[in-house]
Amino acid sequence: MISTATPRRPAVFHRAALVGRHVSPGIAEPLSRLASFLETRGIEVVIEAETARSTGIAAYPIASAEEFAAAADVAVVVGGDGTMLSIARRLAPYDVPLIGINQGRLGFLTDIPITRLEKTLEPMLAGHYVEERRTLLAAEVVRSDGSRETALALNDVVLNRGGGGTMIDCAVEINGRFVYAMRADGIIVATPTGSTAYALSAGGPILDPTIAAFALVPVAPHALTHRPVAIADTATITLTLERGPDAALHCDAQAHFGLVEGERVTVRRAQHAARFLHPEDHDYFAMLREKLHWSETPERLRGR
Amino acid sequence: MISTATPRRPAVFHRAALVGRHVSPGIAEPLSRLASFLETRGIEVVIEAETARSTGIAAYPIASAEEFAAAADVAVVVGGDGTMLSIARRLAPYDVPLIGINQGRLGFLTDIPITRLEKTLEPMLAGHYVEERRTLLAAEVVRSDGSRETALALNDVVLNRGGGGTMIDCAVEINGRFVYAMRADGIIVATPTGSTAYALSAGGPILDPTIAAFALVPVAPHALTHRPVAIADTATITLTLERGPDAALHCDAQAHFGLVEGERVTVRRAQHAARFLHPEDHDYFAMLREKLHWSETPERLRGR
Amino acid sequence: MISTATPRRPAVFHRAALVGRHVSPGIAEPLSRLASFLETRGIEVVIEAETARSTGIAAYPIASAEEFAAAADVAVVVGGDGTMLSIARRLAPYDVPLIGINQGRLGFLTDIPITRLEKTLEPMLAGHYVEERRTLLAAEVVRSDGSRETALALNDVVLNRGGGGTMIDCAVEINGRFVYAMRADGIIVATPTGSTAYALSAGGPILDPTIAAFALVPVAPHALTHRPVAIADTATITLTLERGPDAALHCDAQAHFGLVEGERVTVRRAQHAARFLHPEDHDYFAMLREKLHWSETPERLRGR
Amino acid sequence: MISTATPRRPAVFHRAALVGRHVSPGIAEPLSRLASFLETRGIEVVIEAETARSTGIAAYPIASAEEFAAAADVAVVVGGDGTMLSIARRLAPYDVPLIGINQGRLGFLTDIPITRLEKTLEPMLAGHYVEERRTLLAAEVVRSDGSRETALALNDVVLNRGGGGTMIDCAVEINGRFVYAMRADGIIVATPTGSTAYALSAGGPILDPTIAAFALVPVAPHALTHRPVAIADTATITLTLERGPDAALHCDAQAHFGLVEGERVTVRRAQHAARFLHPEDHDYFAMLREKLHWSETPERLRGR
Repeated sequence: MISTATPRRPAVFHRAALVGRHVSPGIAEPLSRLASFLETRGIEVVIEAETARSTGIAAYPIASAEEFAAAADVAVVVGGDGTMLSIARRLAPYDVPLIGINQGRLGFLTDIPITRLEKTLEPMLAGHYVEERRTLLAAEVVRSDGSRETALALNDVVLNRGGGGTMIDCAVEINGRFVYAMRADGIIVATPTGSTAYALSAGGPILDPTIAAFALVPVAPHALTHRPVAIADTATITLTLERGPDAALHCDAQAHFGLVEGERVTVRRAQHAARFLHPEDHDYFAMLREKLHWSETPERLRGR
Repeated sequence: MISTATPRRPAVFHRAALVGRHVSPGIAEPLSRLASFLETRGIEVVIEAETARSTGIAAYPIASAEEFAAAADVAVVVGGDGTMLSIARRLAPYDVPLIGINQGRLGFLTDIPITRLEKTLEPMLAGHYVEERRTLLAAEVVRSDGSRETALALNDVVLNRGGGGTMIDCAVEINGRFVYAMRADGIIVATPTGSTAYALSAGGPILDPTIAAFALVPVAPHALTHRPVAIADTATITLTLERGPDAALHCDAQAHFGLVEGERVTVRRAQHAARFLHPEDHDYFAMLREKLHWSETPERLRGR
Repeated sequence: MISTATPRRPAVFHRAALVGRHVSPGIAEPLSRLASFLETRGIEVVIEAETARSTGIAAYPIASAEEFAAAADVAVVVGGDGTMLSIARRLAPYDVPLIGINQGRLGFLTDIPITRLEKTLEPMLAGHYVEERRTLLAAEVVRSDGSRETALALNDVVLNRGGGGTMIDCAVEINGRFVYAMRADGIIVATPTGSTAYALSAGGPILDPTIAAFALVPVAPHALTHRPVAIADTATITLTLERGPDAALHCDAQAHFGLVEGERVTVRRAQHAARFLHPEDHDYFAMLREKLHWSETPERLRGR
Repeated sequence: MISTATPRRPAVFHRAALVGRHVSPGIAEPLSRLASFLETRGIEVVIEAETARSTGIAAYPIASAEEFAAAADVAVVVGGDGTMLSIARRLAPYDVPLIGINQGRLGFLTDIPITRLEKTLEPMLAGHYVEERRTLLAAEVVRSDGSRETALALNDVVLNRGGGGTMIDCAVEINGRFVYAMRADGIIVATPTGSTAYALSAGGPILDPTIAAFALVPVAPHALTHRPVAIADTATITLTLERGPDAALHCDAQAHFGLVEGERVTVRRAQHAARFLHPEDHDYFAMLREKLHWSETPERLRGR
């Protein structure tokens, strides 16, 4: 189990990398505001290269994620969960923690509203934060010719039918043992992080991020007895595309691999995890409650 | 309500068209056996053109579905539900009833096992049958340039995401009134016939074929409050693709239309229905029970 | 099909019966306000007997539902859906139409907010309304000794396990034909009206009120292949309690019948329907959208 | 994480306790056969007291579970999962491993068919087995007067509505933090073992027994956004009955506690786990596949 949410001893951040959602009108202003705020706290600021290009912010050093990874103590991300997914995968090997700022709409990963940016970051920069480690998936596509391609995923690895509209046949093995063969639109292997994303739409369970598990969630299975299954995150999952003329593998819906019938995909826990920093009052279930519109109060107490 | 299952007065069939599943090894033998049986009963036999080509059966007149539609009293189909879907759509305008023969695996539409072919057809040819009328859907794609394309569906009309793996945004109107906008893998408009097909995999209800309704079933909806809805089959349903780079419309998973963002699809009950003939002891729920493995007997009676 | 929603020719209401939710603090004021408003429009007001007792309103004639049914043109109900269910069942045999006023929280059946009472009723009293007829269920419990008990339901008839916590075994027949035997917490027979109540919680589909159907919805079925089924509202459904030490039948969760193993319940469409009057701009799907929190606008249009 | 499935070093069993399903006609014969078989292998046999009484087997020493727990190396259980649940809870504090024999119908916990009893037990008695430790839940009911009652559960702790048919309102806290308030038929806290029992009927996920998690599964929730959640098995779950006139708590559907509004239940991992011994070729997913009727082979390979 590598996901935990524990208070850490106070740290001093010396250099922060700023990352913004691309092609997002209006991101330049909050990013500049954030950069100024960090500088006033004595923190050096680096702007991620593509962010600098798309915003035109030129007042700070510019570096690619791989370049700043060695030097930055923390990466502060302004945008949505998609932006976080992307940068978290890239930074995972370098052990750089991430702080997520949303632009008004609470994200599962970007929990700090930009309107409370300074007030929330102030204590975090002084070491008052909690750190969460989130498991990533490593997917490996084994091609018919024996060649291999790999990708990481923070949310999910999805083997899905293509645009032709016909279901795929897929065989699932766990640790080399056959589990089931299934006809379906697709099958999702989700981390706890991804359990509130596509897997939830497909009927999967929410996995608390502290559980060392992955969810295997079928999408529109032909047989009516298939159910989501949670398995240990130490397992190796093998998906074989038995049939499906235009199936593809999607990692975080951001990396895509066309598959040919007979090709296999192995999915296992990645070597590195993502590190997220949250304010000390961070509450996973409070976030779920807000995102999923769960009620805070029994109806009778609301005077029904 | 145009679907009914009522005994009809005895009819005498004079000419039967035979249709077989294409590219199905071993279909020639049962088709020939069926043809001989019909001839011994004084019924003229015509072979559907593509069936003749793929089986090599040459002892009978050959005609396309459109050609034999005017002259044949009945079409006997040997194959699976896919074969039935295809021929039922083609014959719907001509009011030719269909009898479905399966090759060993019970179909939702092909209810007569080939092993009991003669025994079951004998009384049916003598007028002892029940007739079911099954509603079809007429889909019309309204292109951005105003042009229109149409297709029929006996099972379902499905607006689905493409192979890129990202959800579509779709707006749904009924009779010109906005119902909801939804982000999802797709949305299914299913007839009662189609309610046991893809719509069932997506969590839709089973609609008894005698109900004058369609089911609107979301596939993996992003919002958690979307639910399948059954609406009157007199309704006109309009689906607008709000967003989705590679979405497509699928009719019975056999006709396909790529869609561009902003294009609309209207779905309504088709002018004609399909006619299916069944043995007099036909039992819709018994068929469901067998297909879905519902138990016949409470567990306690089975000695649990 | 007896449910319809069609504009009716203007009517003049001469006498209105007022019904309020019992044991509801604060109901007296809005009821009095409503009574005054009706009187100023030249409409005689009668107060339902229990409403008069619980509110202390004494300025108007008092009558039981059965007494005023013969004379009142319309019954105006202030309260929640539970109040409407109760009075609708009582008035169904008398063909008295109902108008539902909610106290701030939109109901499925009480669609007019009390804050807009006068503005909404004004045109309705002048004949500008739409009328909906909603099907009721008639349940008959056949006791082991042959005796029978009956009840009506506007929402649902539910055969449910008791407090002991063990599932029941139940056999379902439709029109005298065996459909399935099931182990489950319970089984729901729901009208379209009830399809948005308990049946929805149990995974059932929403049935548009214009569909002549009932939904059969299992609650937590033991076998994984059971699915909600919609059947024609002309069907007779027979539920036999095969096993269940403390099972009971519930009609609208308001009438209850303990059942002994082996006892049977038949459910069919009731002879009479409930009549509801709505403002002319009444929109069933808009109401669903608000109650179920469906989005009005695709997310991208909301600037996500 | 205390559930594991690992091969253990060969052990020699000296004394076996035999437990049979009560009130099960025909259990005497297989139990006697089992006892004889064990004696021929040099293993002393003790019969559990209630088993001896209900079967009339008198040829062996008789002892209650608590009495034989100290002396027996292993308990062999003939019956269904209910029998296993009951004896596993009683033996958990004593660390006695269990072997489960079914009478013809595969159980989730009783995996050895009686027809293969000798052939399967022979190598197990020689130390060729795998051991699984299955987590138990400890439930504590905190009464309004401050008194407390406790029970263990191997499958699940269920807070459920009573026989009156109305939903309960329940508030859920995890580790003292409020998670949500819910109106529903009930809520299930299930172990991985229980995830294939009632929780599965209610729509919960299957949890591989090696995951250190519990599933929180709502039963027929009123709000449509509630979803099953898996949480760490180190968590303390507190359920407060906010409303529900006749609610009750059920542990493994075998121990029952009536609850009064306002009373609370805490659920946490029990101090002791159950120990199950399986043949070395035991395969959890193969068992699931057989129980849930998952297909072994893609349909196309079956010649569809």
